[in-house]
Amino acid sequence: MSEIIQPRVLKGFRDSLPANEMRRKHIQAVLEHTFELYGFVPIDTPILEYTEVLLGKGGGDTDKQIYRFEDNGGRDIAMRFDLTVPFARFMAGHVSELYLPFKRYHIGKVFRGENTQRGRYREFMQCDFDIVGSDSAAADFEILLLMARCFEHLEVPGVRFHIAHRGVFNRFLAKLGVADRSVALMRTVDKRAKVGEAEVRRLLSEEVGDEAAGALLEYTRPQATNDATLATITELAGGDAEDTQRVRTILDWSARLGLGDRVVLDPSITRGLDYYTGIVFETFFEDLPEIGSVCSGGRYNDLASLYTKQHIPGVGSSIGLDRLVAALEELGKLPPARAGVDILVFCMDEQLIGRYHEIAEHMREAGMRAEVYPEAKKLGAQFSYAEKRGIPLGIICGPIEAENEVMNLKNLETRESDDQLSLAEAAEKARAILQRRSQQDYST
Amino acid sequence: MSEIIQPRVLKGFRDSLPANEMRRKHIQAVLEHTFELYGFVPIDTPILEYTEVLLGKGGGDTDKQIYRFEDNGGRDIAMRFDLTVPFARFMAGHVSELYLPFKRYHIGKVFRGENTQRGRYREFMQCDFDIVGSDSAAADFEILLLMARCFEHLEVPGVRFHIAHRGVFNRFLAKLGVADRSVALMRTVDKRAKVGEAEVRRLLSEEVGDEAAGALLEYTRPQATNDATLATITELAGGDAEDTQRVRTILDWSARLGLGDRVVLDPSITRGLDYYTGIVFETFFEDLPEIGSVCSGGRYNDLASLYTKQHIPGVGSSIGLDRLVAALEELGKLPPARAGVDILVFCMDEQLIGRYHEIAEHMREAGMRAEVYPEAKKLGAQFSYAEKRGIPLGIICGPIEAENEVMNLKNLETRESDDQLSLAEAAEKARAILQRRSQQDYST
Repeated sequence: MSEIIQPRVLKGFRDSLPANEMRRKHIQAVLEHTFELYGFVPIDTPILEYTEVLLGKGGGDTDKQIYRFEDNGGRDIAMRFDLTVPFARFMAGHVSELYLPFKRYHIGKVFRGENTQRGRYREFMQCDFDIVGSDSAAADFEILLLMARCFEHLEVPGVRFHIAHRGVFNRFLAKLGVADRSVALMRTVDKRAKVGEAEVRRLLSEEVGDEAAGALLEYTRPQATNDATLATITELAGGDAEDTQRVRTILDWSARLGLGDRVVLDPSITRGLDYYTGIVFETFFEDLPEIGSVCSGGRYNDLASLYTKQHIPGVGSSIGLDRLVAALEELGKLPPARAGVDILVFCMDEQLIGRYHEIAEHMREAGMRAEVYPEAKKLGAQFSYAEKRGIPLGIICGPIEAENEVMNLKNLETRESDDQLSLAEAAEKARAILQRRSQQDYST
Repeated sequence: MSEIIQPRVLKGFRDSLPANEMRRKHIQAVLEHTFELYGFVPIDTPILEYTEVLLGKGGGDTDKQIYRFEDNGGRDIAMRFDLTVPFARFMAGHVSELYLPFKRYHIGKVFRGENTQRGRYREFMQCDFDIVGSDSAAADFEILLLMARCFEHLEVPGVRFHIAHRGVFNRFLAKLGVADRSVALMRTVDKRAKVGEAEVRRLLSEEVGDEAAGALLEYTRPQATNDATLATITELAGGDAEDTQRVRTILDWSARLGLGDRVVLDPSITRGLDYYTGIVFETFFEDLPEIGSVCSGGRYNDLASLYTKQHIPGVGSSIGLDRLVAALEELGKLPPARAGVDILVFCMDEQLIGRYHEIAEHMREAGMRAEVYPEAKKLGAQFSYAEKRGIPLGIICGPIEAENEVMNLKNLETRESDDQLSLAEAAEKARAILQRRSQQDYST
């Protein structure tokens, strides 16, 4: 016999075991249902693309972070590292078959050869939702509203949506005379939460001098109310304009739709990336601030310009699904890990397996999840299997019971049991127990 | 401005547009629901693995078909080409954290650098379901039952499940004295549907002589009834044994659970692959025989032997999801392509967008999918958008209606409309129209 190969997975990759995968699927189902209520439709794109399409002609300095190789046909190809670039390519290629505004969501795996020492994974699930084809406050607001509804439907309390506007910030930088350094300055400002205000002031002073640094810190500091913050940034940016009006409109609509106390105008939000041109969003959990933003995005007005001359403005947001699963778990906001099955039909006698399958089918037709233990192993082994899986109910039916078309229904959690039930009685009792149990789950 | 990059996708890859993606998600949801009713739980594994893990120590002649490369850390890695090998590696690595029997399903993308001239894709969705840890007729039967229920829940008529047993076939080959050539012979026999019986007889005669070729053809030819076929193969294999008894048991249970007329004992089914050791399955659509088997599998008793010394027997089956979508489309068995949204709130005045979002939220709370057109474009453009998407209902509310808290509900298919409705009245009427419409969908 040949040598055993170690069943190892690559560093930065991991298997998803049933408990985790069921939770991921639950969250995904809640999100998809929410997207659909808002008229968003799903798309998918290939995991492999031409490197030129993903990185642009030059390639650039993301090189080390991406999985890039030559295929057997000699093509220079790479694995997608986000869902935004493939979406831009998708829109450029399909816009004539579609309609605008186009609202899509996309949930899929992306790949980055990141440093695993920082606890990052190299394969993770991303969930993006965008509206393209409209440069309107209504589209900006709809993304914000949808973000809020996603977390409501996930039943997370204490969620705060921080918004800012890159246009206002750019006006302010121009007025300060430092517009040419906007990207570097944004990145420095972005560090405040991590390194503290004093350090940011020092860095900014080095970059643009003490006075401009002071102004930048004043601009990015949130005030006591959104109105006060808006007044401050409007003044610092040189007065009211379309951008500040749009911020006011979004704040008004937020209040009207019941999000008023959850939306924070926070000028320190800049989203480092230079493709954002308007409103930007980040999302924080009050009870778990250390994980940072769990859903971020903003408006970009040049989505597909690499691939088409058609102007396609858009606004969208993105959730890192694996991080969200971990965060919800830490907050205790995941539904209790379920057994994956409600009823185990024990195998007392292999001659009766046809009957056992009939019993299980009846339970399934009544909407319950049921399975048959496939071999007449010792009862102890079967009970221990049921316990490991956390199966709440058992049906026990030996030759005499089968002859009399009755069975015993056992509550495996309380050890109570009901004997001599007909199939219909067993199904009814099982359903009642499961219903009571799931109400308890939700009341705790 | 820099040169435009062509927004092309790689040969053998494709985007999934919303209509296709919604259908795929529908089919996936039906399958997942069915798996869950039978106590199967989901898992996932990485798309990238060590090449050694996927191909075994040597590598072998599958090389050209797989996407294999060196990562930035110099590791020899590859993209998974099926879900079976990763499952074997998964079981070897996690069996001590799990329980046996373990029933899992796994739906995910796999990658093969196949020749695209034959209409094959290089990225496709696979759906596998297996029971490991039990070498029992009950487990074999459960996979068959689950296959049948999947296609019932997908509402496909005329589905036939062809089964055979590799153990019986091997006994027969041993009796014929050609056991050492079993793999080559199976592959030749497997060609009958494609090249015809005469050609298969010629090929077999070349391989094992005329007499053995005649016996092989007799063995693999189904008789008028399953009982007759079973009698023939039992005799040709040298009499009754555990394997023929197991076939009989599975046929008996199939009849008992209502699958009797859909299960065909077909000794020509061999599933070319040499890792099957017991029962094997294929699935055909009577109305679409040319697509071949849409769900295939069987029993293997050595799943993880490459990675562990622990013996893990299993039985399972696999569906090619993209081919199934295409087949169901051809059979007209997909639900009508839906709009992705039920109600469009037209934008008559951008000042009213807050009100429009309130109206849309009310509709969503009543369970309907609604969206707000984000800009006050000409009504013609908004109607044409609604038509392109196939949105059935529109709500029109100008400044006067907004003032009076009323609106107009328009059936965009019949052009009928109701004026001066309150929000509650509009929601009620909309729901009634949508309900009537979805009943019509299902009655046609």
